[in-house]
Amino acid sequence: MIGVFGGAGFLGKNVVTYLRAQGLQVRAVSRQFDDPDLFDRIGAERVIADLQDYESLSRAMNGLSDVIQLVSTASPGHGNTRLIRDIETSLIPQVRFLELCQGNGVARVVFASSGGTIYGKPQMLPIPESHPTLPLSSYGLIKLVTEQYLKLFSQSFAMSHVAMRISNPYGPYQRFKNGQGLIANVIAHCLDGTPVPVYGDGLAERDYIYVDDVSTAFYSALRKSDVGGQTFNIGSGVGRSVIEVLDTIEHLMGKKIPRSHIPARSTDVDRSMLDISAARDRLGWEPTVGFEEGLRRTLAFAGLIPD
Amino acid sequence: MIGVFGGAGFLGKNVVTYLRAQGLQVRAVSRQFDDPDLFDRIGAERVIADLQDYESLSRAMNGLSDVIQLVSTASPGHGNTRLIRDIETSLIPQVRFLELCQGNGVARVVFASSGGTIYGKPQMLPIPESHPTLPLSSYGLIKLVTEQYLKLFSQSFAMSHVAMRISNPYGPYQRFKNGQGLIANVIAHCLDGTPVPVYGDGLAERDYIYVDDVSTAFYSALRKSDVGGQTFNIGSGVGRSVIEVLDTIEHLMGKKIPRSHIPARSTDVDRSMLDISAARDRLGWEPTVGFEEGLRRTLAFAGLIPD
Repeated sequence: MIGVFGGAGFLGKNVVTYLRAQGLQVRAVSRQFDDPDLFDRIGAERVIADLQDYESLSRAMNGLSDVIQLVSTASPGHGNTRLIRDIETSLIPQVRFLELCQGNGVARVVFASSGGTIYGKPQMLPIPESHPTLPLSSYGLIKLVTEQYLKLFSQSFAMSHVAMRISNPYGPYQRFKNGQGLIANVIAHCLDGTPVPVYGDGLAERDYIYVDDVSTAFYSALRKSDVGGQTFNIGSGVGRSVIEVLDTIEHLMGKKIPRSHIPARSTDVDRSMLDISAARDRLGWEPTVGFEEGLRRTLAFAGLIPD
Repeated sequence: MIGVFGGAGFLGKNVVTYLRAQGLQVRAVSRQFDDPDLFDRIGAERVIADLQDYESLSRAMNGLSDVIQLVSTASPGHGNTRLIRDIETSLIPQVRFLELCQGNGVARVVFASSGGTIYGKPQMLPIPESHPTLPLSSYGLIKLVTEQYLKLFSQSFAMSHVAMRISNPYGPYQRFKNGQGLIANVIAHCLDGTPVPVYGDGLAERDYIYVDDVSTAFYSALRKSDVGGQTFNIGSGVGRSVIEVLDTIEHLMGKKIPRSHIPARSTDVDRSMLDISAARDRLGWEPTVGFEEGLRRTLAFAGLIPD
């Protein structure tokens, strides 16, 4: 039985659905389920547990062979004003989670890390996994430190792990309003009919990955026995500018999206994209959903275009 | 005014004494002072404070231009049974300490990290600062993570830092009984007249650095304005085996030290020494006290040979 912690969230719903479609037994674990029918329909177990609550977490862990850890209690939006709070409410529960995995004989933990924040300012593009890790935010640092505790567990105990440094995932089940990332934000503005804020020249580039491609990467990380202890960038490998995202969405919707131009907060050339050759070579994985197709499915899910 | 936190410990007494001899104003901060006269004699301020106690720490920080952080509340001896406890009692106080430094306008924090534990199993010798950091112990991981928080502060605020990855320091004021490291342990056995345990073939090698050479390295890290944000190995650059340490001490004492041979706990070739070329090039520092001379002074301090 595979446990997917954070199974009721954006990545969780997609990953659980995909693993079930591959015939695996899956238990989704979450603090709450806003759509329990989805899990019943696909035949996934549902267990309510909180990463902060040892008792419920311990029950949720019972009988799992492997786990996927998607829970992230820190938030990229809080900057560096809550360093200690993030250690207390995110790092410590993650380490306690790993202790529980180890105590319960879990064979492998696949951890959702952050390809967008863990490296800091890129010193080369695309960014390989060997790039220095100098996160600029508490969120990114907590991800990095959690990876390091995973390595300590892997070295000290018979527990394997794989760290997945995911770029900017988008797709169905994403929360659009107050969601994370440009694509969610643009869709929220389209749904509200309000102008999309564009900072500076709109040429800042990010690496966007359609969520189905994230699901297949997690599946490979669970199944391939020889990738234990390794770290992989999971992204498209391509940088897309704010302008390109907006233009593609306009093209798919067949109409202009109002934009409000806002002076840039920084004059840095701001580009980020991941080198995904390690995942290609060793996970035998690569993204298969093109950017326009991924956006089309996401806009359809949001009800902005017909399915 | 330079603040030396952990100023009453082994490294602390040596560093404070050296900085005073260079004419700097120094405040030693510690939970307790077992030898207050020493500080009065050399004209260093003494302030009692506890890294775990915000109020006392805040008072101790008042008026400091730069600080040296020597306090380490985790211990190398506890293995990995106390991961969360080490986060709570060591990492969180270190981050709170950095927040206080930043809030008090401290210009530079020089942090005592660990060259002996932060790298894990050496993949090359001597070990450069760019070597992967895969600590095998909670102690080493807390040091690594504290370094990473220092970097986050340096990148986000006008606070500079230097991380000093010290190998195995030895010398006067070291606690011999229940102390850390081979040399302290051998001296404790000599003082007690009990045989020194030697594991396996006694060829395991460590990098030992005489404490006066550590003091001069801290002085350089405080004074050189262009090394902000950098990390330095501070060691002798030479590996010395257990047998070599024992033979040198026997030579200096002019008599045999009883040894009790114990089967090796591991068959790994176990060698560690630091590449100190970065400190040579950029701190303008190098060790000046030879191994035999350093041991001679240490044995004299312990009362095992005449001064």
